[in-house]
Amino acid sequence: MRILVVNPNTTASMTAKIAAAARSVAAPGTTIIAAQPDEGPVSIEGYFDEALSVPGMLEEIAREDGEDLAGHVIACFDDTGLDAARSLARAPVVGIGEAAYHMASLVAGRFSVVTTLSRSIPALEHNLHRYGLASRCGRVRAAEVPVLALEDPHSAARDRVSSEIDRAIREDRAEAIVLGCAGMADLARSLSGEHGLPVIEGVSAAVKLIENLATLGLSTSKVGGWATPRRKPLSGRYAVFSGLGGA
Amino acid sequence: MRILVVNPNTTASMTAKIAAAARSVAAPGTTIIAAQPDEGPVSIEGYFDEALSVPGMLEEIAREDGEDLAGHVIACFDDTGLDAARSLARAPVVGIGEAAYHMASLVAGRFSVVTTLSRSIPALEHNLHRYGLASRCGRVRAAEVPVLALEDPHSAARDRVSSEIDRAIREDRAEAIVLGCAGMADLARSLSGEHGLPVIEGVSAAVKLIENLATLGLSTSKVGGWATPRRKPLSGRYAVFSGLGGA
Amino acid sequence: MRILVVNPNTTASMTAKIAAAARSVAAPGTTIIAAQPDEGPVSIEGYFDEALSVPGMLEEIAREDGEDLAGHVIACFDDTGLDAARSLARAPVVGIGEAAYHMASLVAGRFSVVTTLSRSIPALEHNLHRYGLASRCGRVRAAEVPVLALEDPHSAARDRVSSEIDRAIREDRAEAIVLGCAGMADLARSLSGEHGLPVIEGVSAAVKLIENLATLGLSTSKVGGWATPRRKPLSGRYAVFSGLGGA
Amino acid sequence: MRILVVNPNTTASMTAKIAAAARSVAAPGTTIIAAQPDEGPVSIEGYFDEALSVPGMLEEIAREDGEDLAGHVIACFDDTGLDAARSLARAPVVGIGEAAYHMASLVAGRFSVVTTLSRSIPALEHNLHRYGLASRCGRVRAAEVPVLALEDPHSAARDRVSSEIDRAIREDRAEAIVLGCAGMADLARSLSGEHGLPVIEGVSAAVKLIENLATLGLSTSKVGGWATPRRKPLSGRYAVFSGLGGA
Amino acid sequence: MRILVVNPNTTASMTAKIAAAARSVAAPGTTIIAAQPDEGPVSIEGYFDEALSVPGMLEEIAREDGEDLAGHVIACFDDTGLDAARSLARAPVVGIGEAAYHMASLVAGRFSVVTTLSRSIPALEHNLHRYGLASRCGRVRAAEVPVLALEDPHSAARDRVSSEIDRAIREDRAEAIVLGCAGMADLARSLSGEHGLPVIEGVSAAVKLIENLATLGLSTSKVGGWATPRRKPLSGRYAVFSGLGGA
Amino acid sequence: MRILVVNPNTTASMTAKIAAAARSVAAPGTTIIAAQPDEGPVSIEGYFDEALSVPGMLEEIAREDGEDLAGHVIACFDDTGLDAARSLARAPVVGIGEAAYHMASLVAGRFSVVTTLSRSIPALEHNLHRYGLASRCGRVRAAEVPVLALEDPHSAARDRVSSEIDRAIREDRAEAIVLGCAGMADLARSLSGEHGLPVIEGVSAAVKLIENLATLGLSTSKVGGWATPRRKPLSGRYAVFSGLGGA
Repeated sequence: MRILVVNPNTTASMTAKIAAAARSVAAPGTTIIAAQPDEGPVSIEGYFDEALSVPGMLEEIAREDGEDLAGHVIACFDDTGLDAARSLARAPVVGIGEAAYHMASLVAGRFSVVTTLSRSIPALEHNLHRYGLASRCGRVRAAEVPVLALEDPHSAARDRVSSEIDRAIREDRAEAIVLGCAGMADLARSLSGEHGLPVIEGVSAAVKLIENLATLGLSTSKVGGWATPRRKPLSGRYAVFSGLGGA
Repeated sequence: MRILVVNPNTTASMTAKIAAAARSVAAPGTTIIAAQPDEGPVSIEGYFDEALSVPGMLEEIAREDGEDLAGHVIACFDDTGLDAARSLARAPVVGIGEAAYHMASLVAGRFSVVTTLSRSIPALEHNLHRYGLASRCGRVRAAEVPVLALEDPHSAARDRVSSEIDRAIREDRAEAIVLGCAGMADLARSLSGEHGLPVIEGVSAAVKLIENLATLGLSTSKVGGWATPRRKPLSGRYAVFSGLGGA
Repeated sequence: MRILVVNPNTTASMTAKIAAAARSVAAPGTTIIAAQPDEGPVSIEGYFDEALSVPGMLEEIAREDGEDLAGHVIACFDDTGLDAARSLARAPVVGIGEAAYHMASLVAGRFSVVTTLSRSIPALEHNLHRYGLASRCGRVRAAEVPVLALEDPHSAARDRVSSEIDRAIREDRAEAIVLGCAGMADLARSLSGEHGLPVIEGVSAAVKLIENLATLGLSTSKVGGWATPRRKPLSGRYAVFSGLGGA
Repeated sequence: MRILVVNPNTTASMTAKIAAAARSVAAPGTTIIAAQPDEGPVSIEGYFDEALSVPGMLEEIAREDGEDLAGHVIACFDDTGLDAARSLARAPVVGIGEAAYHMASLVAGRFSVVTTLSRSIPALEHNLHRYGLASRCGRVRAAEVPVLALEDPHSAARDRVSSEIDRAIREDRAEAIVLGCAGMADLARSLSGEHGLPVIEGVSAAVKLIENLATLGLSTSKVGGWATPRRKPLSGRYAVFSGLGGA
Repeated sequence: MRILVVNPNTTASMTAKIAAAARSVAAPGTTIIAAQPDEGPVSIEGYFDEALSVPGMLEEIAREDGEDLAGHVIACFDDTGLDAARSLARAPVVGIGEAAYHMASLVAGRFSVVTTLSRSIPALEHNLHRYGLASRCGRVRAAEVPVLALEDPHSAARDRVSSEIDRAIREDRAEAIVLGCAGMADLARSLSGEHGLPVIEGVSAAVKLIENLATLGLSTSKVGGWATPRRKPLSGRYAVFSGLGGA
Repeated sequence: MRILVVNPNTTASMTAKIAAAARSVAAPGTTIIAAQPDEGPVSIEGYFDEALSVPGMLEEIAREDGEDLAGHVIACFDDTGLDAARSLARAPVVGIGEAAYHMASLVAGRFSVVTTLSRSIPALEHNLHRYGLASRCGRVRAAEVPVLALEDPHSAARDRVSSEIDRAIREDRAEAIVLGCAGMADLARSLSGEHGLPVIEGVSAAVKLIENLATLGLSTSKVGGWATPRRKPLSGRYAVFSGLGGA
C-alpha cells in the first residue's frame, strides 16, 4: 500500500527525517511518499504558522488522494489542518499528534508531552481536549527549543528535551512520554532507554495506524463535520481546488 | 475609534449586511471598516472552507492593524482563524461566535445555537468547549439552510430558522437563542419578538466588545499561545507577511 | 442611560471608589448611580457575609429598577446575590466577577484570579464553574489581605497583590490577571504596566457590559431559573418586597 | 442527641410534616427540634425566595448551636444557605438535597430528581455540580406543582409526581428517584412500591447523616471556605448576629 | 440488625482491626460479623491483588446474604469488587472508600486522600471519578508504606502518613483528610487531633451508612448495571455460585 | 510474531469466531493463539460474570507471556480484567473495547456503541470515561440480545443490532458505530455496507494495535498503576500465580 506522509513546513531536512522514521516502521508492502508544500513557513511554531501552512499541505493531499492511496499522515505534532484534510480526502488521514496520544494510552495510564516552544502548549492542550484524551495527559511541557534547533546536531536540543522528561517523571506522575514535534522522531528510542519508560513519537505511530485502517477497511465517515466539501467557485491561488467537492 | 469588521468569505452582499449590523450599534465616535478577502470561498460551510479563507482574512487584518485601530471583528460564526489573527494583530480581535456566547451568558442560564448546515455543528461545539462555555449551551442545532440562501429573500431560510428555535425552546430548555451565522444578523430582533426570549447575533455583540476593550485599555496578551509570531522568510503567496513577526 | 452600581457592603469609602471606577469608563451619555445597603456587613469575606448582604442589596435594586434604568451592576467580586437579583429585576444585571472573567477570556487563553482572603477561594471557584469559565482559569489565589486593608493607603495590600501576580505568572502559566475584589478597582492599570500583561478589574468591565446589553436591546430571559418571582405575602423586614412578583 | 431540623420557609404545616419525617427515622436517643423562621417567604420557589429565607434561617441555627446540639438539618431541597450555615455553626450541617443525593449514590448508579417547578431546576443542577454528583444524575425534572399544592390533599400533586417518575424511568435510564422538595417527604415509600425502584427523600436521609457525623466525631472543617466568619459590627435587623464570629 | 464486614484479604490481624473499628461505632442493636476469604492475597496492593481477592470475597457475601442481614461492608479502600457484590447481593453493599468520600463531602469542601503505595493511586482516582466526587478531592497521595507495615507497631508507617497529611494541607488546600487503607482505621482520631482538621476513615463510615440504608428501607436498585446476575452453569471453583442469579 | 487472543468466557464457538476475526486481519508473519479459561461463566453479561471470569483469564495470560509473545488481546468488549492483566504481563495487553474506541476516533468525530444487554451499559460508560473517550461517544445503546443469541443463526440478533444502528444515526448524530460485543465480530462489514458509515468491531482492531506496539517497540509502562505485582504467598486455587511478581 502507498501512504502519503506530508510535512506541512518547507524544511527539506525535516521532511527527510520524517520519511526515514516512517520507512523504519512501515510494513514490507508499504510505500512511503514524503512531501512538503512549495510555499509556507519553514517551521510551525504557533497558530499563525499553522494557518499559513494549511493550504499548501492540502494541495499535496489533494494531488495524492487517488484510489491507490491507503491514507495520509500529517507530520506536524499540532495536527495542523487535520479537519480540513479529513473533509477533503477520500482516504483516511491521521495526525502524528493524535497517533502518539492513542498509542500512549495503550501503554500508560498517564503520559506527559514534551514539545518545543511554550507558545505551542495551548494548541496541543486544545487538541487533547478535542480528541478526548486530555484526562490521560499529566501536562504539556515545552523544552524551549525552536523547531529548527532539532535539525542542528550541535544544539543543546536533545539535552533540554531529556531534562524536561526528568521533570515530567518527577512532577507529573508521568508513566510515559510523548515527544511533541515531528523533528524529535529520531530521539524516541534512546530517550526511552535513558529514562526507563515508554517514549512515543508520532510519525511512526501514525504510519502504523494508517496501515491498520487500510487493513480493517475503515475510512473517514462522511456523515457530520468531515463531510465532503460543497463544490464552490475557487480562483487565483486556490484554483487548484476548484474541481473538488460534492453537492 | 476605528474597528475593522472582516467577512472571511468573498460574498459582497454578506459583507454589506454585516457592515450594516455593525454600524447599527456602533457608538457615536466609532467608524466601521468592512472588508473581505480578494480570493477564497464564497461562503464558509465546514472545515475546508475555513482553511482556505484564513490567509486572505489575515491579509486584511495585517493591512489595517495600525496604531489607530481599536480592534478587529472576525465576522464568521465559526470564529475562523481567530487564534492566528490574535497572534498576528497588535489590536484586540473578537470573533462573532464568542461574542454572542459571552453576551448570551449574561442574560440566560442556558442558550441554544441555531446555525445553517449540520456539517458546521462539530466546529461550533469545539469552539464552545475551548471558550469554556459549552456547559451553558443546551444544543447546537442546524436549520439545514445553506449560507447563501440567507441572502435570497425568496428562500425559506427565515422560516426554517424560526422552526428550529421552536424546537430549541421545547426540547433543550433554552432560555435564549444564539444565531449561528453572520448572514442571520438582520433576523435577531424580529425573531426575539416572535419567540419571547433573547435572540443574540454576534456581529453587533462583537463590535460592542471591541469598543469595551478599547475603553478599558485591554488588548491580547502576548504571553502564551497568542505570542507575536516569530519572523520567518515567506515568499510567493505569503510574501505580504514576510516583514511581520518578532524575535 | 442610567446604571445602578450597588456595593453590597456598607463601607462608604468602597462605594466611592467603585463609583469612581464606574464613571471613569462610562460612555458620555451614561449616568452612574452608586448605592449601598443601609444595614449589613462592612465587608464581604465569605459565605456568611454574603448571605447577610443580599436582602439589603435587593432593596437597592428594587428601588431603582424603573423603566429608565439600563441595568444593575453588583459590585462585589463574589457576584453576591446575582441569581436573586436577576430574578427580581426587569433590567439586566451583571456581576463584577463574571464581567471580569468574560473580558479576560477575550484577551487571554488562561487567566489567574488574585483575591483577598483564602476563605473566598471556594466561592469564586464555584462561580467560575457555574459560568462555564473554570477551564480558562489557571488558579484562584488569595493575597491574604482583608478587604478593608485595601482602603488603607498605609497597608501592605498592594505589595501583596503584586507578589501574588508574580507567582501566578511563574506557576500558573497565567496570560492575564483578574483582580478579585471591588476594592482593587484602582490598582488594575498600574499593575498591568508593572507586570506586562492584561490586568482586569470587574467594576469597569461590568459597566461596559451593561451599556452593551442596553444598546443591543437584551435583557434577562424570564424563561427558566431567572423567572419573575411568584408573588407572596411578605411582612416584617421584607414588607418592602411585598407588592413585587408575578403570577 | 439533639438535632435541629429547620424549615427555611414560614409554613407551619410543612414544618410539621418535616418534623414527622425526621422523627420517623431518628435513633432511639435522638431528639428532633423543628423550627422555622419568623419572617420570610411561605414557600421557596426559586432564587429570590431563597435569598429572603436565609437570614431568618440562620437566626434559628445560631440560637440552637450550643454544645449539646449534634447538628443542623436544612429542610429545603435547594439546600438554601448551606454554605453560610456551615460557616456560622459549630455543629455539622447537612442539607436535605445533598443528603438525598449521597444516599441515592449508594443504591443506584444513576438517579433522576423530580422537583416542584421548573424554575428550581437550574439551582438544583448547580448544587449537583458543586457536590460533584452531577454525573450520577440522569436529569432534574419538574412535576410543575407549586410547593404548597403538596400541602393540599385534594390537589393533583401526587399524581403529577408519579407521572414524572414514569418518564424518568423511561427516558433517563434512572435506577432510582430523588424527590426534590421537603414537602414530598411523606410520598417516598408509596412511590417506591408503585414504581419498583428506590425513591429517596432527603429529610430522613439528612437526619441519619447528622447522627453518623456525631457518632463518628466529625464536624465541619474550619479550614477553607467554611471558616468561622470574621467578627463584624452588625446592627438593625442583623444585631442578633453581632456577637458571633472569630478573629 | 446484622452487618457483614468483609476484609477481602486473608490477613487475620487486619480483619480483627477492621472488626474493632466497626464495632466501636455500631448502634446498640447492631451485630457486626467480620469475615475474610479462605484463599487469596494477604494484602491488596494494586489491580492484580484486587482481581484475585474478588471471588473469595463474593463467597463470603453470598453466604451471609440472608433475609436477616442489613447489609455488607467491603473493607478494602479500593472498594474491591463493589459492582459485582451489588449485583449479587439482596442486601445493600457499601465500600469503605466511597463511604469515606461521602462523609468527607459533608464536612469539607475539598479533601485529600493518603493511601499506602503509589501503585494504588490510579485505582482510587478512577473510583473518585465514577462516584462523581473527583472534583471534591485535592489529590490522592501515597505515604509509600506497604499495607502490612501498618500491622507492625515498630514500623514508621504512622509517621509517614502524618507527614503526608502535612503536605496535603500545605500543597493541596485540603480541608479534610481521608485515610486510604482499611489498615489505618485506628489512626483517624489521633491524626485529626494532631493536624486540626477532620480525618475520616472508611470502616466506621460504611457501617453507619449501612445502618442508615436499613433504617430508611433502601437497597440496591436492580434496574441497570446492578441487576441480579443471569443464572448460568458454574462448576469447579465457582460451583458455590451455581444456584444463584435470576432469569 | 505470536499474539494471544483470550476469550474470557468458556464458550468454544465464541472463541472460534474471535480467532477467525483475528486471523482475517493478522499480518503475514503473525500467529494468533486463541484461548479461553477452563472454568467460569459461559458468557459475560454484567459485573458478576466479569469478576468470575478474570482469574481464569489471567491464568491463560500468565501461561503465554513468554519472551516470544508480542502481546495479549482481551476479547471481551468490557475489557474485563485489563488492569490486572497489564500489571501481570510482560508483553503489552489491549482490550477489544478500547481498541474499537481508538480506531473509531480516527474516522469519526462521534460514534455510538451498540452492545447486547442494557445491564452492560454502565460498565462500558465507565470504561469510556477512564479511557478519556467518553466525549467522543454519542450514546451506549443495547440491542437487548443475550450474548449467546449471537451464536444462534436463527435468532433475531442481527436484525436488532441493525435497528439499533438506525436509531443511533437518527437520534445520536453518530458518524460511526462501534459493535459492543466480541460475538458481533462477524457482522461489522455487512452492517457498514447496509448503513453507509464505518462500523468497527474490536477483535480485529486490537490485533492490529498489538502488532503496532510490537513494531514500535512499546510495552506497558511499569511505572504507576500497572507496576509488576508484589510477590505474595498464594495457595489453593491461586497457587499457579505464586511464583510471579516483583519486589
